[in-house]
Amino acid sequence: MLKKILIANRGEIAVRIIRACRELGVSTVAIYSEADNYALHTQMADEAVCVGGPQSKDSYLNMTNILSACVLTGCEAIHPGFGFLSESSKFAKICKECNIKFIGPDYETIELMGNKGKAREIMKKVGVPVVPGYEGKIDSSIQALEIAKEIGFPVIIKAALGGGGKGIRIVREESEFKHNFEAAKLEAQACFSDDRMYIEKFIEKPRHIEFQILADEFNNIIHLGERECSLQRNNQKVLEEAPSVFLDEETRLKMGEVAKYAAKAVNYKNAGTIEFLVDKDSNFYFMEMNTRIQVEHPITEMVTGVDIVKGQIRIASGLKLNLTQEDVNVNGNAIECRINAEDPENNFRPSPGLIDELYIPSGPGVRVDSAIYSGYEIPPYYDSMLGKMITYGATRDEAIIKMKRALGEFAIGGVKTNIDFQYDILTNKEFVKGNYDTSFISEKLMAKDI
Amino acid sequence: MLKKILIANRGEIAVRIIRACRELGVSTVAIYSEADNYALHTQMADEAVCVGGPQSKDSYLNMTNILSACVLTGCEAIHPGFGFLSESSKFAKICKECNIKFIGPDYETIELMGNKGKAREIMKKVGVPVVPGYEGKIDSSIQALEIAKEIGFPVIIKAALGGGGKGIRIVREESEFKHNFEAAKLEAQACFSDDRMYIEKFIEKPRHIEFQILADEFNNIIHLGERECSLQRNNQKVLEEAPSVFLDEETRLKMGEVAKYAAKAVNYKNAGTIEFLVDKDSNFYFMEMNTRIQVEHPITEMVTGVDIVKGQIRIASGLKLNLTQEDVNVNGNAIECRINAEDPENNFRPSPGLIDELYIPSGPGVRVDSAIYSGYEIPPYYDSMLGKMITYGATRDEAIIKMKRALGEFAIGGVKTNIDFQYDILTNKEFVKGNYDTSFISEKLMAKDI
Repeated sequence: MLKKILIANRGEIAVRIIRACRELGVSTVAIYSEADNYALHTQMADEAVCVGGPQSKDSYLNMTNILSACVLTGCEAIHPGFGFLSESSKFAKICKECNIKFIGPDYETIELMGNKGKAREIMKKVGVPVVPGYEGKIDSSIQALEIAKEIGFPVIIKAALGGGGKGIRIVREESEFKHNFEAAKLEAQACFSDDRMYIEKFIEKPRHIEFQILADEFNNIIHLGERECSLQRNNQKVLEEAPSVFLDEETRLKMGEVAKYAAKAVNYKNAGTIEFLVDKDSNFYFMEMNTRIQVEHPITEMVTGVDIVKGQIRIASGLKLNLTQEDVNVNGNAIECRINAEDPENNFRPSPGLIDELYIPSGPGVRVDSAIYSGYEIPPYYDSMLGKMITYGATRDEAIIKMKRALGEFAIGGVKTNIDFQYDILTNKEFVKGNYDTSFISEKLMAKDI
Repeated sequence: MLKKILIANRGEIAVRIIRACRELGVSTVAIYSEADNYALHTQMADEAVCVGGPQSKDSYLNMTNILSACVLTGCEAIHPGFGFLSESSKFAKICKECNIKFIGPDYETIELMGNKGKAREIMKKVGVPVVPGYEGKIDSSIQALEIAKEIGFPVIIKAALGGGGKGIRIVREESEFKHNFEAAKLEAQACFSDDRMYIEKFIEKPRHIEFQILADEFNNIIHLGERECSLQRNNQKVLEEAPSVFLDEETRLKMGEVAKYAAKAVNYKNAGTIEFLVDKDSNFYFMEMNTRIQVEHPITEMVTGVDIVKGQIRIASGLKLNLTQEDVNVNGNAIECRINAEDPENNFRPSPGLIDELYIPSGPGVRVDSAIYSGYEIPPYYDSMLGKMITYGATRDEAIIKMKRALGEFAIGGVKTNIDFQYDILTNKEFVKGNYDTSFISEKLMAKDI
């Protein structure tokens, strides 16, 4: 087992990783920015090293300082969490060159799957179904328009190195193509320092369903079932549940096998997620693979009993998977609500500030993964996610009821949050029936405000 | 289903009951004392009624005011929680006379099981093993001494209506009998307004193992397995776990059947607990039955997946049990640490006061049932228990590791707590091996301080 790990992240995922390490007896080193002096992860780790200024580029994306911190504190490995450097093949490669274990797949795999076009290409080649689209290089918006016309509108424009909903535009008509393409390109450049773009057919009202993969370094691979992540706003997930109400058993089995096959095709190691688009006829298409832990991993943990973060560390330590596909049982239902410091009444504008009052719910079947405490000041520099509320029930109805109960108890003073917005989702009749797709929030839930 | 319930309690158990009600769609009325204006249960319930002054006798034990509150708010039922009026047959009887459903067994059963001597007598009669002792009326300390000599020292003196470790003395020698008997009698009078005493053989270094019973009003009865509650200080439980490491499968099965048989013998309804003493040779003796929800019920919930408080409300609503004995499966291990505001360095003196800093742990496998928040002032009038930390693991080792991790994260500022004391238990080698009995804390853990 690895003995000492640097956690190259902040917020609730850094806390989550520290918890897993502590339970495994692994020492932890946190990194923090000048804005995160009093952050929970900074306080909770065994050691903490300041790696730079408040802006992410100066701290949580500052490879040199992070690697120096790693070497100076004698860490053998780096857990990148999600976001920040978690999908940087460059960072993973440098780690390898410095003889530091990057807790994730090989940098080659990250690079391959990080480029949406290339990932698509290889999946298509090995027979994994993909959405019709263009794999080649796009030189200009004029060429891009030609490609879009060939695929046929609606199309979706994505940053080749994208993730987290950034650099994405859906275009339904030719006339709207050019300015959307250019805007997405600019956003991609700003977010990923790379403006290569990718275009594919836009599937109307699909479901976003993903499979959690765990693969060790001895060619053993399992999946831990699916997560239904169709509830999104601006391509950002809002609420996730496991299992999906939509999938029939046959499709579920098929998708699980395809997910493992896809991961094997790229020699995948460690935890990863294969994201699929599923249309109303249960046709499914490979969308992308996330080569890291996901925000929504806890719902899979709740229904399978498998600790995915510990799994990552065990795999990176060179241990074999301690369970087979047959050992994986999905029991009950879990829901996750992302709790963000944002103002739903004001176009979800981030709402940083001092948390001057706090009550975090608990009780049977309720888990909260967060990094906040009463008196904590949320800095304005990072993602607005404060934490995740996860509930578990023997049935989906029970998980929903528990979530409503827990959201009702959650009290955060000093900042605006999306708690009431989440409550609205949970009380929506169509949601309760399981009748929803990725257009649900924009069309069903927010339409009433217009 | 009952529509509106008054919760005749405070603290974490009142919050626990409110949560269960909310998930069942039942309206709640809290009662509170003048000291509990800002208590969590007061704030969390749908309605709240002040029933008197800070002293328990003026508020949480004030039957008239509680019943008035119940009638005025239109509640159909009262959930008594634990402590306070939960084992008052008088209160249960008045409820019945007022046509208010008391959530618990019939008052006759409470009265029968509340009198330790009578309970023993009936158990002996139906063939449930009991510890040798004297069932009759004790008129004087002289008569008591004669009884003790006949049973043979060591003996244990108990308040006939006792509970919660009050009014109990263990006497090993004749010369120490009289003053102990009189002290226990005084304590019994002070705590229970009743000084009838009861004497039995004291079993050396027994284990305290109890079985959770659920019985509906249609003669269906199940048990939910056992809880190992041997870790006690001054006869107060400190840490509990489920299942017990000590019991072999044969004894476990036998005890479960005896527990159900014992409950049936007194026409038991609703949730209750049969407490046994188990000697080193696995002989077990009926000790007493608690005719109410127990502090440590969550560990049973964690390993069985059954919500016991919801079960109580369903049964009181006249519903049949929705599971049979065959449906009950015990999976994994759960531990509960009681978190008290007390000073272990100062003879566990209660430590009320303002909580000026608070971080409550969470994450996978951690549940905290509490009624505290940052800025809450713990009043000096009531029990020092702030809440309960419960962890769940697939194995006992995992549950222990999680508890250590969670206790390490728990931060409470402004008052002293027993968190470090609990941590000492969890790191004790004998505890880790499961080698402990009711003498463990006084002999193994605290001896080192002497």
